[in-house]
Amino acid sequence: MIGYAFMGRAHSQAWRTVAAAFDVPEIARRVIVGRDEDAVAAAAQRLDWEEHATDWREVIARDDIDIVDICTPGFLHAEIAIAALEAGKHVLCEKPLANDTAEAEQMVAAAEAAQARGQIAALGFTYRRVPALALAKRFVEDGRLGTIRQVKASYLQDWLVDEDAGMSWRLRRETAGSGALGDIGSHAVDQVQHLTGQQVTAVRGRLATIVPRRPGEDGLEDVTVDDAAWASLELDGGALASVEVSRMATGAKNRLSVELFGSAGALRFDLESPNELWFHDATLPVAEQGLRRVLVTEPEHPYLEAWWPQGHVLGWENAFTHQVRDLLIAIRDRERPDASGFSPDFADGLALQRVLDAVIASDAADGATITL
Amino acid sequence: MIGYAFMGRAHSQAWRTVAAAFDVPEIARRVIVGRDEDAVAAAAQRLDWEEHATDWREVIARDDIDIVDICTPGFLHAEIAIAALEAGKHVLCEKPLANDTAEAEQMVAAAEAAQARGQIAALGFTYRRVPALALAKRFVEDGRLGTIRQVKASYLQDWLVDEDAGMSWRLRRETAGSGALGDIGSHAVDQVQHLTGQQVTAVRGRLATIVPRRPGEDGLEDVTVDDAAWASLELDGGALASVEVSRMATGAKNRLSVELFGSAGALRFDLESPNELWFHDATLPVAEQGLRRVLVTEPEHPYLEAWWPQGHVLGWENAFTHQVRDLLIAIRDRERPDASGFSPDFADGLALQRVLDAVIASDAADGATITL
Amino acid sequence: MIGYAFMGRAHSQAWRTVAAAFDVPEIARRVIVGRDEDAVAAAAQRLDWEEHATDWREVIARDDIDIVDICTPGFLHAEIAIAALEAGKHVLCEKPLANDTAEAEQMVAAAEAAQARGQIAALGFTYRRVPALALAKRFVEDGRLGTIRQVKASYLQDWLVDEDAGMSWRLRRETAGSGALGDIGSHAVDQVQHLTGQQVTAVRGRLATIVPRRPGEDGLEDVTVDDAAWASLELDGGALASVEVSRMATGAKNRLSVELFGSAGALRFDLESPNELWFHDATLPVAEQGLRRVLVTEPEHPYLEAWWPQGHVLGWENAFTHQVRDLLIAIRDRERPDASGFSPDFADGLALQRVLDAVIASDAADGATITL
Amino acid sequence: MIGYAFMGRAHSQAWRTVAAAFDVPEIARRVIVGRDEDAVAAAAQRLDWEEHATDWREVIARDDIDIVDICTPGFLHAEIAIAALEAGKHVLCEKPLANDTAEAEQMVAAAEAAQARGQIAALGFTYRRVPALALAKRFVEDGRLGTIRQVKASYLQDWLVDEDAGMSWRLRRETAGSGALGDIGSHAVDQVQHLTGQQVTAVRGRLATIVPRRPGEDGLEDVTVDDAAWASLELDGGALASVEVSRMATGAKNRLSVELFGSAGALRFDLESPNELWFHDATLPVAEQGLRRVLVTEPEHPYLEAWWPQGHVLGWENAFTHQVRDLLIAIRDRERPDASGFSPDFADGLALQRVLDAVIASDAADGATITL
Repeated sequence: MIGYAFMGRAHSQAWRTVAAAFDVPEIARRVIVGRDEDAVAAAAQRLDWEEHATDWREVIARDDIDIVDICTPGFLHAEIAIAALEAGKHVLCEKPLANDTAEAEQMVAAAEAAQARGQIAALGFTYRRVPALALAKRFVEDGRLGTIRQVKASYLQDWLVDEDAGMSWRLRRETAGSGALGDIGSHAVDQVQHLTGQQVTAVRGRLATIVPRRPGEDGLEDVTVDDAAWASLELDGGALASVEVSRMATGAKNRLSVELFGSAGALRFDLESPNELWFHDATLPVAEQGLRRVLVTEPEHPYLEAWWPQGHVLGWENAFTHQVRDLLIAIRDRERPDASGFSPDFADGLALQRVLDAVIASDAADGATITL
Repeated sequence: MIGYAFMGRAHSQAWRTVAAAFDVPEIARRVIVGRDEDAVAAAAQRLDWEEHATDWREVIARDDIDIVDICTPGFLHAEIAIAALEAGKHVLCEKPLANDTAEAEQMVAAAEAAQARGQIAALGFTYRRVPALALAKRFVEDGRLGTIRQVKASYLQDWLVDEDAGMSWRLRRETAGSGALGDIGSHAVDQVQHLTGQQVTAVRGRLATIVPRRPGEDGLEDVTVDDAAWASLELDGGALASVEVSRMATGAKNRLSVELFGSAGALRFDLESPNELWFHDATLPVAEQGLRRVLVTEPEHPYLEAWWPQGHVLGWENAFTHQVRDLLIAIRDRERPDASGFSPDFADGLALQRVLDAVIASDAADGATITL
Repeated sequence: MIGYAFMGRAHSQAWRTVAAAFDVPEIARRVIVGRDEDAVAAAAQRLDWEEHATDWREVIARDDIDIVDICTPGFLHAEIAIAALEAGKHVLCEKPLANDTAEAEQMVAAAEAAQARGQIAALGFTYRRVPALALAKRFVEDGRLGTIRQVKASYLQDWLVDEDAGMSWRLRRETAGSGALGDIGSHAVDQVQHLTGQQVTAVRGRLATIVPRRPGEDGLEDVTVDDAAWASLELDGGALASVEVSRMATGAKNRLSVELFGSAGALRFDLESPNELWFHDATLPVAEQGLRRVLVTEPEHPYLEAWWPQGHVLGWENAFTHQVRDLLIAIRDRERPDASGFSPDFADGLALQRVLDAVIASDAADGATITL
Repeated sequence: MIGYAFMGRAHSQAWRTVAAAFDVPEIARRVIVGRDEDAVAAAAQRLDWEEHATDWREVIARDDIDIVDICTPGFLHAEIAIAALEAGKHVLCEKPLANDTAEAEQMVAAAEAAQARGQIAALGFTYRRVPALALAKRFVEDGRLGTIRQVKASYLQDWLVDEDAGMSWRLRRETAGSGALGDIGSHAVDQVQHLTGQQVTAVRGRLATIVPRRPGEDGLEDVTVDDAAWASLELDGGALASVEVSRMATGAKNRLSVELFGSAGALRFDLESPNELWFHDATLPVAEQGLRRVLVTEPEHPYLEAWWPQGHVLGWENAFTHQVRDLLIAIRDRERPDASGFSPDFADGLALQRVLDAVIASDAADGATITL
């Protein structure tokens, strides 16, 4: 694993837990890599890795490393992932795939070559592994929604409400790439495409920096990324989607919300109550129709057979364990003709990046439609 | 109509509205009766009654009066209702039927004689006409819950939380009969019996006066009724019910809540959200089971065809209009062999009173079971 | 009153009820007007009007008529309202003000002349009188939200989900003017402007007809209005708003939803639970912050002192009574220097119409910003 | 650790995770003990313990063992816990303390002797470590509820709704001790006492076996424990509490629900949404009072500084990690004069057991009050 901050902690928890919960091969947690030797040494001990190192190139070259899990900031993804794939390793790369499209294209080329050699190149859109969202996907695939016409997605947070909150690398374009759009909008758009099984074909977008200047080290400094963004999406299956994201949504803590409206039913999900999927079955008699709170904790629900009895809910972190579980199964089964592989892969990440770029391009073109 | 306070206003609203909403005979709002001439005159004008009067005996004797609607305090119910029934009028009497059982028994005798003459003696447990509760009843009758095993009912209010709130007639046994138990517990027990279609056969109860003395006109005075009450009920169909009522439940405004648990499904209702009925269908596949919020505003729902388009919710007051509508239909159809009559009637009120008496008796007997 | 369909019924209920609930002058319900004599005669009886008539011009000319309440379809508003205002009457006109802007401008001219003569020209955006939304307005005016940055509004219904549902006048541009945008989007945009106290200055919009052809009398026919619409709005106080409306939102019955995000707090409202206002106070200590469900039924809440005790909720129809109450007070107080008048008036309706037109114009211009 | 079933898995997860999340001493997971050698060997590997063993006496005798975590069924608790305490080990014992009071008294004696020697004897009522319930406790201690008058607690599950579900050790008195009362009622009563800070002084109770016979290996067999139970409790601080528990509550999966009503505020919690605490502050102006959903995921909330950013919710399992964290801190600080120790201890468990016994005794005495 390369990186040991927030995402490194979450991924470590998953690697530590996966074999206790699921029937997967045991994986040694060999090396954790970071630039600051003291800090990475402490992380190795705390997060229970066998060794630590400061040079990821040396680690990638080792024969006893099979999987490289990349938890660094986005601007480092391309170099590491390409090197790891070329060294014959399976790769799990945190989202976003890269900070710009050119890099992302190179990563996809490397991934395609590696996949042809039987390697896995997995991208970490972890929320696909939240059981309630996996159940939503199953309901859609089973036709329970009929034709999906309209999707309403948003991802709202409020950690920038205080206008005296200071500058950071996340608020500068050169380090962060983009703001709310790239950070959390990417999840919302990924869910729209993933749940519907449809790809975005045209985009209209708007970006806004609501607090344009914030205190930096030398006085007020320009915020160069978006605080909030809106997009209107056309999908190739005919659905229309709206996406709204913000870091200024007072009272919203981590509110990824998705609603799907179809000819036969509807679904609703909110990441602040991640164990609930709300389902409306429009084929029932009218007098008994209603939005139904499915508490997604039954053995019959995705991933749940591995955990606790019904009604014992999961937390945010469990989806990372599911992600590692799916990765290990994809690796184990990659030779089998019926293997489903790991989704999303790097190509999915590039496609998503192009949607986000189109939102930015549309905003720059005064809202004009950008076709993909 | 006799009485023009809170209940008089609500009943007047119903009489004024019923013919606009439902296909029922037009009823002239002939006379409103009260003891204070100025006040009842003002009420007649405000609530749109043709005349006012101060002597209910004279009014009951009039030939142009067909229905007597009794909205006075409970201790006056018996005298007026018996006189009205003996005068050949149909009677709608607000709950409680009476303040004591002896009076209630006399009222039932008068009602039975009157019913044999073709009169209606209706008791105003209005919440039976809340559409969501009427739908709950329909679901139970349609077998959607299977065998009902357990019922959890409560009615919580908070208007006595402030211990400096002063004495009133509602806090003295001689005027109020009982406290939370009789006032709101009666609704909870009525719903338990009505929704299950089962009668209480045995009772254990507890009463409590949480703030035992409150400021009166001459200093602190004893509160002689209960602030809160609990009961455990056995029903003749095998269900077991718990009932909890309180006027000290901080934050609860008018929270009549009922949950029914059956072998095939469950229902939940809360009067603070009266347009919603929550239904759990335990016969669906496990992976899609969940409590379903039915917004009870469809034309297919009880009473709703008379009102507004779907999604346009009703308020607390509409149930009074439904009650008057059902009364008028009961009167119209009373000669028909298939007429369903009006439920509850005075006998139902007496049966309910006996359950409440048993709660009090059980508490007096240190919680011992009282059999009915 | 002119018109006796859905809106006529709701307005009649309000006129019948207002003097029983509020301390306002008594108003005789003189004449109800419609084109079909039998139908309007039946309506007069059912809805309790003294007379009926078929020629609105004759009625407007009568001396015993002081107020004209216009509940006809939108394309008749201009002619009637202008005539009534010129005849010296006070006018209450249902929304939308008119089906096109040219007519609306003429109406505003007539209203301004009439207002100068002391007449009231009121527009019926009734939802401003829902107590929870009136309380929201009060919270904003009291500064409880600080600076409002972001607004998320939607109005979702589902009565067109069935693609075999047939054509009607509401689905043809020539009769309806527009589709979901004009019908329900107008309410959403009105709330955005009303609650923030800010006016829209720039608009980007999208319209969609999701089911483009529906069965008509002679086979499939083109739907010429929108099924759904989206808008992104800039307001003159700096807030940014999104609006989404649809008649294809499976499971949504009458879901007008508004969320306001400010520097000091947030508010949330949903018309399917109209007695609840959710308030987040961001000035409290972090550990106790949360979205708070205010059950808007206290005497301290707008309009509530007139109704029932706390916890006894109101329905959709009560807001119409509040509207008539405010109209009568505006008429009574119109000479007083401190009179607040009636809001919205025709000029507000025209301003709103221009926002909706801008949404349509933006969509026609491939999403380009339209400045107002 | 002794035992490797459901609770053994949950405790193992906690031991594996605690040092990654919290700043506590590292603890080697030395030995896991079970009777079936193959099964315990598999568990040791899966749950990541260094060794496995089949004889708990040998393990307790080892010098390299400091803490004994007892996850066996309740009837084995006494023997193991007493032996471990006498061997000088710290003990964490899962609830219930024991299956009968005599054993529990012996355990308390052993624990008191051990505590005098500086050992910790901890009892695993893990729900006290759910952050929302720890926050509730803090609110009560800070006086935010004023005087607590009324408590409404319930714990509802539905895994026995199917009357064809077969017999198991949990349904026989000789193995299980009691049914819903002991299994889940113990949690409800513990929360009542813990959150109020008051001890039960008097009890009235009822037990019911709703499905009295179930299919066993040789035909229908008597169920000898309760399916559901109800209790009415008096507490030494003046509060009155109701408790209702059931395994027949259709649709309820793991619904431990607690409501506290005080003179200054109220709290509500539901274990199916464990990251939410609902707080009503009755000292605010009436017009803005309401039940407030506090999403308990801020660094300011109990235990949360160790986990993820705000809005990233925890699951059922995290409370076990908190329990181990508190145990390790209690061990580390036990010599310090200001150490808070670990609560609950064995004496708390015995006191709780006496409350549950009183419920049973009251039911046997036809509901009579049992004084403690």
